[in-house]
Amino acid sequence: MLTLDFHPTGRHFLQIPGPSPVPDRILRAMSLPTIDHRGPEFGALGMRCLSGIQQIFQTRHPVVIYPASGTGAWEASLCNVMSPGDQVLMYETGHFASLWIKMATRLGLKPEVLTLPGLEGWRKGVQADLIEARLKADTQHAIRAVCVVHNETSTGVTSNIVAVRKAIDAARHPALLMVDSISGLASAEYKHDEWGVDVTVSGSQKGLMLPPGISFNALSPKAIEASRTAKLPKAFWAWDEIIEMNKTGYFPYTPNTNLLYGLAEACDMLLDPQHGGLPAVFARHQRWGEGVRAAVKAWGLEIQCADPAVYSPVLTGVMMPEGVDADAVRKLIYDRFDCSLGTGLGKVKGKMFRIGHLGDCNDLTLMGALSGCEMGLKLSGVKLAGSGVAAAMDYFAGHPSRMPLQKAA
Amino acid sequence: MLTLDFHPTGRHFLQIPGPSPVPDRILRAMSLPTIDHRGPEFGALGMRCLSGIQQIFQTRHPVVIYPASGTGAWEASLCNVMSPGDQVLMYETGHFASLWIKMATRLGLKPEVLTLPGLEGWRKGVQADLIEARLKADTQHAIRAVCVVHNETSTGVTSNIVAVRKAIDAARHPALLMVDSISGLASAEYKHDEWGVDVTVSGSQKGLMLPPGISFNALSPKAIEASRTAKLPKAFWAWDEIIEMNKTGYFPYTPNTNLLYGLAEACDMLLDPQHGGLPAVFARHQRWGEGVRAAVKAWGLEIQCADPAVYSPVLTGVMMPEGVDADAVRKLIYDRFDCSLGTGLGKVKGKMFRIGHLGDCNDLTLMGALSGCEMGLKLSGVKLAGSGVAAAMDYFAGHPSRMPLQKAA
Amino acid sequence: MLTLDFHPTGRHFLQIPGPSPVPDRILRAMSLPTIDHRGPEFGALGMRCLSGIQQIFQTRHPVVIYPASGTGAWEASLCNVMSPGDQVLMYETGHFASLWIKMATRLGLKPEVLTLPGLEGWRKGVQADLIEARLKADTQHAIRAVCVVHNETSTGVTSNIVAVRKAIDAARHPALLMVDSISGLASAEYKHDEWGVDVTVSGSQKGLMLPPGISFNALSPKAIEASRTAKLPKAFWAWDEIIEMNKTGYFPYTPNTNLLYGLAEACDMLLDPQHGGLPAVFARHQRWGEGVRAAVKAWGLEIQCADPAVYSPVLTGVMMPEGVDADAVRKLIYDRFDCSLGTGLGKVKGKMFRIGHLGDCNDLTLMGALSGCEMGLKLSGVKLAGSGVAAAMDYFAGHPSRMPLQKAA
Amino acid sequence: MLTLDFHPTGRHFLQIPGPSPVPDRILRAMSLPTIDHRGPEFGALGMRCLSGIQQIFQTRHPVVIYPASGTGAWEASLCNVMSPGDQVLMYETGHFASLWIKMATRLGLKPEVLTLPGLEGWRKGVQADLIEARLKADTQHAIRAVCVVHNETSTGVTSNIVAVRKAIDAARHPALLMVDSISGLASAEYKHDEWGVDVTVSGSQKGLMLPPGISFNALSPKAIEASRTAKLPKAFWAWDEIIEMNKTGYFPYTPNTNLLYGLAEACDMLLDPQHGGLPAVFARHQRWGEGVRAAVKAWGLEIQCADPAVYSPVLTGVMMPEGVDADAVRKLIYDRFDCSLGTGLGKVKGKMFRIGHLGDCNDLTLMGALSGCEMGLKLSGVKLAGSGVAAAMDYFAGHPSRMPLQKAA
Repeated sequence: MLTLDFHPTGRHFLQIPGPSPVPDRILRAMSLPTIDHRGPEFGALGMRCLSGIQQIFQTRHPVVIYPASGTGAWEASLCNVMSPGDQVLMYETGHFASLWIKMATRLGLKPEVLTLPGLEGWRKGVQADLIEARLKADTQHAIRAVCVVHNETSTGVTSNIVAVRKAIDAARHPALLMVDSISGLASAEYKHDEWGVDVTVSGSQKGLMLPPGISFNALSPKAIEASRTAKLPKAFWAWDEIIEMNKTGYFPYTPNTNLLYGLAEACDMLLDPQHGGLPAVFARHQRWGEGVRAAVKAWGLEIQCADPAVYSPVLTGVMMPEGVDADAVRKLIYDRFDCSLGTGLGKVKGKMFRIGHLGDCNDLTLMGALSGCEMGLKLSGVKLAGSGVAAAMDYFAGHPSRMPLQKAA
Repeated sequence: MLTLDFHPTGRHFLQIPGPSPVPDRILRAMSLPTIDHRGPEFGALGMRCLSGIQQIFQTRHPVVIYPASGTGAWEASLCNVMSPGDQVLMYETGHFASLWIKMATRLGLKPEVLTLPGLEGWRKGVQADLIEARLKADTQHAIRAVCVVHNETSTGVTSNIVAVRKAIDAARHPALLMVDSISGLASAEYKHDEWGVDVTVSGSQKGLMLPPGISFNALSPKAIEASRTAKLPKAFWAWDEIIEMNKTGYFPYTPNTNLLYGLAEACDMLLDPQHGGLPAVFARHQRWGEGVRAAVKAWGLEIQCADPAVYSPVLTGVMMPEGVDADAVRKLIYDRFDCSLGTGLGKVKGKMFRIGHLGDCNDLTLMGALSGCEMGLKLSGVKLAGSGVAAAMDYFAGHPSRMPLQKAA
Repeated sequence: MLTLDFHPTGRHFLQIPGPSPVPDRILRAMSLPTIDHRGPEFGALGMRCLSGIQQIFQTRHPVVIYPASGTGAWEASLCNVMSPGDQVLMYETGHFASLWIKMATRLGLKPEVLTLPGLEGWRKGVQADLIEARLKADTQHAIRAVCVVHNETSTGVTSNIVAVRKAIDAARHPALLMVDSISGLASAEYKHDEWGVDVTVSGSQKGLMLPPGISFNALSPKAIEASRTAKLPKAFWAWDEIIEMNKTGYFPYTPNTNLLYGLAEACDMLLDPQHGGLPAVFARHQRWGEGVRAAVKAWGLEIQCADPAVYSPVLTGVMMPEGVDADAVRKLIYDRFDCSLGTGLGKVKGKMFRIGHLGDCNDLTLMGALSGCEMGLKLSGVKLAGSGVAAAMDYFAGHPSRMPLQKAA
Repeated sequence: MLTLDFHPTGRHFLQIPGPSPVPDRILRAMSLPTIDHRGPEFGALGMRCLSGIQQIFQTRHPVVIYPASGTGAWEASLCNVMSPGDQVLMYETGHFASLWIKMATRLGLKPEVLTLPGLEGWRKGVQADLIEARLKADTQHAIRAVCVVHNETSTGVTSNIVAVRKAIDAARHPALLMVDSISGLASAEYKHDEWGVDVTVSGSQKGLMLPPGISFNALSPKAIEASRTAKLPKAFWAWDEIIEMNKTGYFPYTPNTNLLYGLAEACDMLLDPQHGGLPAVFARHQRWGEGVRAAVKAWGLEIQCADPAVYSPVLTGVMMPEGVDADAVRKLIYDRFDCSLGTGLGKVKGKMFRIGHLGDCNDLTLMGALSGCEMGLKLSGVKLAGSGVAAAMDYFAGHPSRMPLQKAA
């Protein structure tokens, strides 16, 4: 197998903000023989996955699991509740938000885009006041939905979903609240029900620590209601049959069985009370983010997220000084140190790179990655103010995790 | 992990016509760490998968690989070449053909259904003369496409695609020829280019011996041309961006990386010249089909496929005598002998069951499965004319595989 | 990897009496990353293995786990309790008994061999009365140990260990009772303490369903006492340091960590109360043995074990008619049907083959194997009295397992 | 499985000098189904392993592969060529050398120990002149063998085997040269034939990057000759039958099949010409050693190896300042940073720890490990002269590997 012998030794450092490193435990679970998706053993697996993923979305309502990667779940969220020509208010926080907008257009919707001017919109979170103002102006309630990205994977900015909910409520507007938390779920705190979200879109290959290939729509009763009358053509993505069959743990068409093995295992890992459950998951990503940002600051480089209140716990965007090609730096780090970093996307292409700090990480894998960055930056001729590696060590040494790293033997 | 401890010992016999048993070699390949889908290693993997799958479809034209299960590839085939309200001529050979028809309706197309009366249509292959007659009558060329299923998974009937092509040509009709070979590819002979197919739909979990989760559209230049003006909304399924990015081995959105590891491995296995390549693949499924049918005939039971010219090499539908509940027989075989068989679907529900003979099988796994069937039929009180197991042994013993089972050491 | 692509498709039927087929669950457990054998995680693993293996031997006394295959554990059993020139009374029930005798000679002991004349000794179990008579004659108590094989892997004969214990007691002789249960443990009933055995030797690759590579000495206090004064040189095999370090779950030198992962998993599987625990393990091997012997009898062939009271639940020796080369039959079955059978060993070389029915089997894998045998026998020109496959189906269908095959979902 | 859920996320840093981190490729190979060790597929596997391991030992003579861990191979080396009471000249370079000496005594040999006084002997390599002098004094040629350790795992000192060979030759002494290269093989340069070694002992869990469980004796014709008359009892360890059966790729008793799968894979990896073969293997361990020693020096701590000419490329012993408990430091690093380091053994217990830099490593895994050490040392209150992490980054950035890390795609 080609991918087996690409490197002579040593595990590759996969520090992109997803697909995230997959734990060995999940890879092993996924390699079990495929079973009959109509047999009793599958029903038990399905129930377990559906219950686990609800706990992770923090919802009591249906979560639809698609045997498709995340982009599909975006399409699903739109085509289930929208009709051709519908107006949607979409906030552009970065490249992925802009791709979702592009998709809405392609599907025949009329997206209206809010954002801050220049690069500003890509360096700050959603400005809920802009949404509130726009909705208040929409006295006819022509706007069907407000679409925002929870954790913008292209920038490292997390948006305040509670504030968006409040803005919609303040405007007394019936628009659906639709949130992309593809890279936020199971790493940044997320509460589908409590936050009043109608549709949350997510995927397997980020905080859930699975390979790509399954994706999610978490729903609200209001979203389900809306889907009954929405007119965009839909078949594969249609919620109705899936929700119906899920009641007994089955799916209307062939599910991605082996990824569901992985999902069951991931839920066990993330919810394991002995490791502290979801609060510990959120805390460890916050802590990793702090350590990485300490490094970036010590290097004297700018963090793309310009608002510390919404720093992402999942990834950090690192801006290059004028004249430095971020992709050349990334390539050098890949070639010399076997570490993959995220490229700058869209309008920040070549101007920044992204360090993922999510999934199957620990302090020392992050230290390895930061060392690779520091060596690579220096070898690329970037002048650094100081050692980011030293700063990150200070942070990690000074801020122990609240949960012990090992179970009592 | 639940699925690990369901049975005390012994490998489950997965004799449904897909998902098929997955070789250990593929399961191991799939369990390797996920890599960056934008890095150089992925490009090499992508090129290898794309080249391999073209050889398996026997095409020189693009094959689109979706990170979604087979039902998605059906939708993709339709929404890329069709516009709302388009007429399609669809031939119903069984339950899956009828589901494809239902999907076409749901997507806003106008399917016209051809089939033989009563159960006849579900026991014989596509009647190409009916298609020819209908197309000749369509002097306005309103029909945009002819849709047929190559190997009907619900019945065990394979259709003659060459005859359908000839029918369209004889009618001098410009309709696209669209074929579902989800369960035919890599087990029944299939030649996308030579047979003049415009879009072939397939999936991973049958002859390719992979878990479900990726699916395919093999295209013709004519289909690609048609996609440029088709108006059904499409984004996730759109061929254009995928074909463009595939030129260098990459994908526009996150691919199902670990299933691509499996696909690369599956292509190596199926195309391995030391094992005889595709001709040996087709020959072994034919041989397995012969053995299983010998058993069914010896039992004195009817094979659902009523035309020996189109017996499926992939699965065999076994009809129960009047008054026997096929699903009760299946359940007994599952409970007592740990063997999964395919249920009767749609209008044959409870009247038949299906034995899959595809994927990671060999003579003795099939003998095990047939033994389970014979014991289960007897325990269910079905009167058998004779021993199917004895007949299958006679067949297998008397008809050695042309390829040796082992490579020269 | 060579072993990956040896066969085109289909799982090989490994029907030798060990190494037995290894469950997927164990193979996955064994493929986890190796850990520090001096760290806290290892201590927990070690305690779990040691406790599990004690339950399987049904002993409260120490069980020594060697990072070596079974032949090593034979040597260990002798060199820990014997001094150069010591006399041992060894009963030859077959080839493996004779190899143990040969080893004793090679180590400088003086084995005295008991057996029945001709082939008789290899077709019946240990004759306890011969042992009793010999021990009574040894009024000087020169004999240090009585060595017997519990389940003779070369013949398919199980010996009555309780009777041997009684014979020693009846002779009021202080000899140690040493038993090889390499292929008996965890498939045939075995009670180290209750049966009064001093040293039981076993290995991983039989009833424990693990790959070869670890082996065992279960001890009695009397054996431990004897080891304090025994004078054969020993270092690697010495019990003393191992027993001492095992108290906290560790080993004096590097253990075979990944096989211990497998052992922990195997103990969980074998002792799982939801699957019926050890009684269910013994019952299923008994049942498999009955089914296989029903087949052999229906073929009109002779079972090597001439005493039905000691038929092995683990394997069945099948004798060929005069003039048939058993190894030619085996080769044909391997080449044509991808099934490995055990060869005749020592004085029955070419005259019989052995069918293993142990480890990760179920009714249908055995039916597959028996079908391979029946086809192979016929193709080899062996005249069969009837269908063994039919007889085995009758048996399995008529004698359901008392435990359900699936856990409640 | 216990070992699956010990840590919440992140791969453990296994920085002990063996068992070394095992590549995913090898773990997957090892998890394939066990095959018949008497079948044709096994013969091919056996030949491949035997040929590969000869290339790694750089010998044309037999290499015996034991299904036992390394301590067993030590015993084998002695009991094959020695007779009770034989004199052996053993050089004590550290704890493992002293254990080998202890074993020789336990087996009834008469070891005479050479070393330097005080801790000196444990901080420098073998002093060949001491050996030469002693052998010259042995005019009766009573000394049967000279035993030295190539890479002392307890100290991080490598000995000059060429010099030892010259010393024996200079003394015109017929003693056998026996070398323990358990932790040297496949990481430090080693040439069994060219260096004139008679028996080299090695194991799987170090440079070969396998789990523990198999071990080796590489032989010379002179050693084989000696084994014909040696009188220590031997059976399991006896070379003669193994060498004979190995001619066709088989073994006289059950081999450790699944570890042989791993060995075949390891040989492919280590000898892969596209990755530079053995010279690249030796070069990368040298480079890692340089980087780690740069760190230790920058911390202002002493390296246990006091002679830079024999620094080990495999591990580095780090001495603690007076009053610091090395094991408390190790425990803190384990608890806080999930990194295992080697403990001080024997007379340096508590005074030093060992950092392994072998096996499935790369620059960034080492940087992660060094970061863990630096944080742990500081948190333990050890005063450091400077940042070892910074020094290692300087070294690794300034000294690129000569081989590219990735194959041409």
